[in-house]
Amino acid sequence: MNIVLLGSGNVATHLGRAFKLAGQTIVQVWSPDINHAKELADTVASEAISDLDDINRDADLYIISVKDDAISELASKLKIGDKLIVHTSGSTGLEALEGVSSRIGVFYPLQTFSKNKAVDFRQIPIAVEASNPEDVAVIRAIADRLSERVMELSSVQRKALHVAAVFACNFTNHLFAIAQELLEAENLDFDLIRPLIAETADKIQLNEPESVQTGPAIREDREIILSHLEMLQDKPELQELYERLSQNIVNLHKQSQG
Amino acid sequence: MNIVLLGSGNVATHLGRAFKLAGQTIVQVWSPDINHAKELADTVASEAISDLDDINRDADLYIISVKDDAISELASKLKIGDKLIVHTSGSTGLEALEGVSSRIGVFYPLQTFSKNKAVDFRQIPIAVEASNPEDVAVIRAIADRLSERVMELSSVQRKALHVAAVFACNFTNHLFAIAQELLEAENLDFDLIRPLIAETADKIQLNEPESVQTGPAIREDREIILSHLEMLQDKPELQELYERLSQNIVNLHKQSQG
Repeated sequence: MNIVLLGSGNVATHLGRAFKLAGQTIVQVWSPDINHAKELADTVASEAISDLDDINRDADLYIISVKDDAISELASKLKIGDKLIVHTSGSTGLEALEGVSSRIGVFYPLQTFSKNKAVDFRQIPIAVEASNPEDVAVIRAIADRLSERVMELSSVQRKALHVAAVFACNFTNHLFAIAQELLEAENLDFDLIRPLIAETADKIQLNEPESVQTGPAIREDREIILSHLEMLQDKPELQELYERLSQNIVNLHKQSQG
Repeated sequence: MNIVLLGSGNVATHLGRAFKLAGQTIVQVWSPDINHAKELADTVASEAISDLDDINRDADLYIISVKDDAISELASKLKIGDKLIVHTSGSTGLEALEGVSSRIGVFYPLQTFSKNKAVDFRQIPIAVEASNPEDVAVIRAIADRLSERVMELSSVQRKALHVAAVFACNFTNHLFAIAQELLEAENLDFDLIRPLIAETADKIQLNEPESVQTGPAIREDREIILSHLEMLQDKPELQELYERLSQNIVNLHKQSQG
């Protein structure tokens, strides 16, 4: 299968490598910045282009993997006839590709990609969608070569998955950044808390989050909560966040108890 | 070393097992509920008591491991002479034990303990503190038998460590619970997101949180953020949390850039 990859960010990079490993051919990598295109093209033995007029019109699959708000505009500039084209966004509907081709779809790998860290693509869930059933089958077959966990989701389901991922991954990582800030203010190393973070994620692999919730909020230990809020008095943003999250934990607990 | 363990919750349980494994003797386990005391006493080959008058006065170390707001009251009821007594709380000062003995201290293991999941105590940071230097050395020697990561922290530092842990562990786990709620509302399984959670924690083991932050907020992808807020419109608590955390990510990013 011949693939044209449009984009050179984290998702495009990891996807390109995974396709290459799975024996597919990336015929071109496009990026508005030719140096970015070249950097990725080199690692997947492909041609780099920055002019959309140079696009190869004979590929089997075109993958748009750019910032969400740039997908529609880029798609509208493509002259590729009735070829299969997909985007890789969690929260962008299929309709962002309408008018480009009659064969449009989505190929959304659910993972947090950092350029310098390899991931095991076999375990990454890939949500697929397409405007017609034949193309669902085609995209699914492509995804099956990369991952053991491929599923067809509607745009609404995929978006829910993306929002859930923002909470479980992006916001979680931000909480780690806050922890680091608090530690460094007392000359403590972030390394102190790394085993706790590892265990917090590890616990969840075999348990439901609610059943392993710990801490002052779930115990409704008002005295400790107040003393923590007092400690955060010079950081009103964190104080408010602490209060809100604690209250949410209490509320969720009450709700689930009936 | 002969130890009396006061408490039978998650921390007391894991601590009792770890001491036992390290070859120490738990002479008694006290809990106001004799059945709880027995349950833990059985697993550490100890005697169970529920009456404080029955406390063994010849032990070398008394460990109070109860809810933070119950420490002072329990301590004030103990008649143990001038024996070494510690509590295991992150956010409770040394002074909660004042008046019980002249040898008071803190032994705070930084980890999230769930009763049915074993943890590798060797990797758990233990923060120690005591009112006099000799007892710091004694408590440190005890801690060294359980963990490779023992350090002396002041009450203020320990509290900062605890607040950081609340953000990095308790609040993080709550974000996982929110993710589950969002997935289940669209008939999606929480299992879909478990690899993402594992990778989010794994990335942080060798990186700084800020350098691996991903998602719509750090990209300032306003269109996606708005579409997520719209999706959460029936859940005002989550909508507000989403908005606040996104704004915090943007703020932190701007701050660190300049």
